[in-house]
Amino acid sequence: MPKVAPDSSRRSQAARRAILAAAFDLVGEVGYAKLSIEGIAAAAGVGKQTIYRWWPSKGALLFDAFLALTTEGEDGQSGALPDTGDLAADLKVVLRATVAELDDPRYDQPMRALHTEIVHDPVLAADYAKRLDEPMRELKKDRLRAAQRAGQLAEDIDLDVAVDMLFGPILNRWLQRTGPLNSAYADQVVDTALRGLRPREP
Amino acid sequence: MPKVAPDSSRRSQAARRAILAAAFDLVGEVGYAKLSIEGIAAAAGVGKQTIYRWWPSKGALLFDAFLALTTEGEDGQSGALPDTGDLAADLKVVLRATVAELDDPRYDQPMRALHTEIVHDPVLAADYAKRLDEPMRELKKDRLRAAQRAGQLAEDIDLDVAVDMLFGPILNRWLQRTGPLNSAYADQVVDTALRGLRPREP
Repeated sequence: MPKVAPDSSRRSQAARRAILAAAFDLVGEVGYAKLSIEGIAAAAGVGKQTIYRWWPSKGALLFDAFLALTTEGEDGQSGALPDTGDLAADLKVVLRATVAELDDPRYDQPMRALHTEIVHDPVLAADYAKRLDEPMRELKKDRLRAAQRAGQLAEDIDLDVAVDMLFGPILNRWLQRTGPLNSAYADQVVDTALRGLRPREP
Repeated sequence: MPKVAPDSSRRSQAARRAILAAAFDLVGEVGYAKLSIEGIAAAAGVGKQTIYRWWPSKGALLFDAFLALTTEGEDGQSGALPDTGDLAADLKVVLRATVAELDDPRYDQPMRALHTEIVHDPVLAADYAKRLDEPMRELKKDRLRAAQRAGQLAEDIDLDVAVDMLFGPILNRWLQRTGPLNSAYADQVVDTALRGLRPREP
């Protein structure tokens, strides 16, 4: 016999989703500093103890809210990068979508909060690297490996460096606000990364 | 007649430097959250009012401490990038030095604190972009322009994108701790950025 009755399990699942959604919405409204377990509990319609049973801190809870967003996805997709056979075009679609997401006011505050926590908390950073960065990085590297097989990407490059060169500039410009972050910039990063900075051979 | 006597001006200058150095040292010891104007005043041997006369907040003070470090420099250098005529070698020297600085425990905490403030404070971010990022970015672009004149860099690339592709991956890997940050990585970023990701022409 299952330890938890089906109805109870479904209710738990529903409560968990409500809490994650409430945490994400609330941090966007009030900012991370003012985000409280009490506030999330009230917004999700659950008791504080329900939250403390599952998460030790608001940082851990917010991180799970992100994980739910990226691994489950709003549309239930697996998260694999598009592969039309045109590497540059596919990367531009992905980098433009990243820019659009970072520009979305619903995501801006929660993502800044998560990044701040990561910068200062090595334990959360390790958790982030393992549970969020690495799985997403593997999806990106899968697309680059397909490009290598198709002869569109050099065989001898380090794929981690390639991922960093494509996605790092976007994240940095967003975090530091050092310049305009738009589709034109996303396209330029892709073209420049693929082609390199050296003069073209005549 | 000058409004401030020479002796008084010299004392002010000395106090200012002591405060900036104390702020920098103290944030490395106690972290940004516990950094206080009281603590900085005590460490610098000045009164709190002296600090408040010059800086409205600890964020503004910490930012000036960084500016003093980068614009005056410990060795009084102008900060221009090396130019031996070998672009790849010169960029590797600079990126390796950046990695070493980020790895220095004296700098790690203060720089994380400054970056966190920038992420959440658009006013400080604008100040940072104008007074710290842009002057340093111009020095980097000067070196890239010299390489363009020497035929070592494509004429038609966007130099801001080039700077982002070279320095962005280093900063990101440091902030997010997503992988080892060492000289080998610095070298790989330079080589990959210059050469590009596409297959070499046979």
